[in-house]
Amino acid sequence: MNSIKMYNHILAQEIHQQPDVFRKLIEKETSNISKITSAIRGKFDYILIAARGSSDNAARYGQYLFGLHNRIPVALATPSLFTIYEKPLNLDRSLTIGISQSGQSPDIVEVIREARRQHRPTIAVTNQTNSPLAKAADHVIALHAGDELAVAATKTYTASLLIIALISSFLQENENLVRQISIVPEKIDEILNGFHNNYTHVERYRYMQHCAVVARGMNYSTAFETSLKIKELTHIIAEPYSSADFRHGPIAMVRSGFPVIVIAPKGQVTCDLSELCQQVVERNGELIVFSDQHQLIKMAHLAIPLPDGIPEWLSPIVAIVPGQIFAYYLTLVKNLDPDQPQGIHKITETY
Amino acid sequence: MNSIKMYNHILAQEIHQQPDVFRKLIEKETSNISKITSAIRGKFDYILIAARGSSDNAARYGQYLFGLHNRIPVALATPSLFTIYEKPLNLDRSLTIGISQSGQSPDIVEVIREARRQHRPTIAVTNQTNSPLAKAADHVIALHAGDELAVAATKTYTASLLIIALISSFLQENENLVRQISIVPEKIDEILNGFHNNYTHVERYRYMQHCAVVARGMNYSTAFETSLKIKELTHIIAEPYSSADFRHGPIAMVRSGFPVIVIAPKGQVTCDLSELCQQVVERNGELIVFSDQHQLIKMAHLAIPLPDGIPEWLSPIVAIVPGQIFAYYLTLVKNLDPDQPQGIHKITETY
Repeated sequence: MNSIKMYNHILAQEIHQQPDVFRKLIEKETSNISKITSAIRGKFDYILIAARGSSDNAARYGQYLFGLHNRIPVALATPSLFTIYEKPLNLDRSLTIGISQSGQSPDIVEVIREARRQHRPTIAVTNQTNSPLAKAADHVIALHAGDELAVAATKTYTASLLIIALISSFLQENENLVRQISIVPEKIDEILNGFHNNYTHVERYRYMQHCAVVARGMNYSTAFETSLKIKELTHIIAEPYSSADFRHGPIAMVRSGFPVIVIAPKGQVTCDLSELCQQVVERNGELIVFSDQHQLIKMAHLAIPLPDGIPEWLSPIVAIVPGQIFAYYLTLVKNLDPDQPQGIHKITETY
Repeated sequence: MNSIKMYNHILAQEIHQQPDVFRKLIEKETSNISKITSAIRGKFDYILIAARGSSDNAARYGQYLFGLHNRIPVALATPSLFTIYEKPLNLDRSLTIGISQSGQSPDIVEVIREARRQHRPTIAVTNQTNSPLAKAADHVIALHAGDELAVAATKTYTASLLIIALISSFLQENENLVRQISIVPEKIDEILNGFHNNYTHVERYRYMQHCAVVARGMNYSTAFETSLKIKELTHIIAEPYSSADFRHGPIAMVRSGFPVIVIAPKGQVTCDLSELCQQVVERNGELIVFSDQHQLIKMAHLAIPLPDGIPEWLSPIVAIVPGQIFAYYLTLVKNLDPDQPQGIHKITETY
């Protein structure tokens, strides 16, 4: 279906599978999510999300999207309070969502179990519908991503985002938003089809030792996940920031040649990120941009264009894909194994 | 009062002032905080904290302490929703706390104003009691830190933590906890008095380019703040993690010589952090430990001992001090100016 020239790695195949995963997910889970949201609507004042790793980055998307479209505050769980400290939170007026590809991590499962003990509504978002997480929750939403064999999560991350977009839109009973979601698979096809040439310059970063990854608002999640892919796959130290937090101190690190990746799909934060790009250029930093905005692209040493016409609220599902591909190509350039990065495992059980 | 041999920099003086700031703060604000907590007790189900930079790290302490002692969930605010996106959250059942040394940052002020528009209780924690933040809130708690002239925050960070400890203890109406807080100034005196020799080995890190800073639970905040001090003052890329998140991917970065700072005052997470230290050693990483625990200290290449006898819930106020001093000495070793780090300003106004 799409023709980007990737080598025969599992990671590359799984990046490719994303549009089809989304089509299947929308087909199979829409009516389930509609039912779940009807059952919980109006029964909570805030959402607690428990997740780790890439799933925690999906939770960050939820933090912004549930805020923007539903005006619902989101707290990210502190699982150690439930496990190591054995002092579970009082969850009155909460909805609790657990997100985990494997559904195995004991600390995430324990947060959901405790919410259920307190008779609060719970949702599990997982790729494994017979996992401990799925069994612990009132409601289960499946990722339908098929087996994810590469250690670095790609399709399960974006599928988690898509589910959050569906939950938020159905909570709003906004069919227009639900319809907009179906644009996502084709936009990712566009990235996978057209942009191979943009990655030949990834060689430039063969000896990069560290970088900052900056976004703002809706794409705060994308900064975290891009950074995590780079760290997991290439062992380069990549640190994620909101542009506001970056200005409150860490910008001091930016000196001649310091690489800053700015992720800026069109949206209300474009102006803020454009100013930040200007600051990076003034400090002689190395600017890398993933964007559809001409004024940002022209400032960059390397620009990966994003497709036009993505509503800002859905852009995190699309704007992570160049980061996945960038990290993948960087493993090849550095002679590393993209499928089995050294030193980490697919399922990490934390307490 | 204390005799650590620091040079005549403002930063060193402000690090020194911390015990006296705390004594003054406890004397001046205890009855105010007691009154505020009486006025708000039982009127909210969760807390929203709005803050940036070091104050946001103080908010992370609040997230764990309000959870551990009060069982209250804490959400960290997403200020851009209130400002750039102009879609303020529905704050039903919330208490909103804004933390800012200067009280100037427009995005933090806007979160407090919006909470007040929604007739929700609001508290400003600030060093400037005539600032926009103080004027916006129902209740004001002053840091009593005196002017903070060094660009990197030290005494205003720890004073913010102390205020959070007081709010939490008074909310619980637990006088025993309130009394325990008075141990903090003398424990910091112990650090400032006794441990000069531990820092001579900071020279070892003259050419360190990056590091990870790891803690868990209560001291998650300390990992973030230690990392921020190192970044602001020395331009070294220092990235903070909980030990659980670190195992979910970033541990892949740890190879021969990779520096990992582990902050581990005695507590319920000691065992978890001890295992992590073991993993770093097995990967031939460079282990730096700030701890009072013998089994961790003996594994480390550099160990900065913490004083005994600090209750875990108060340990973040004490355990940050070695990080402040470590970052300060590192500026000297690297011939940098600790008072005016390049590229950042004391007050950062973000929208």
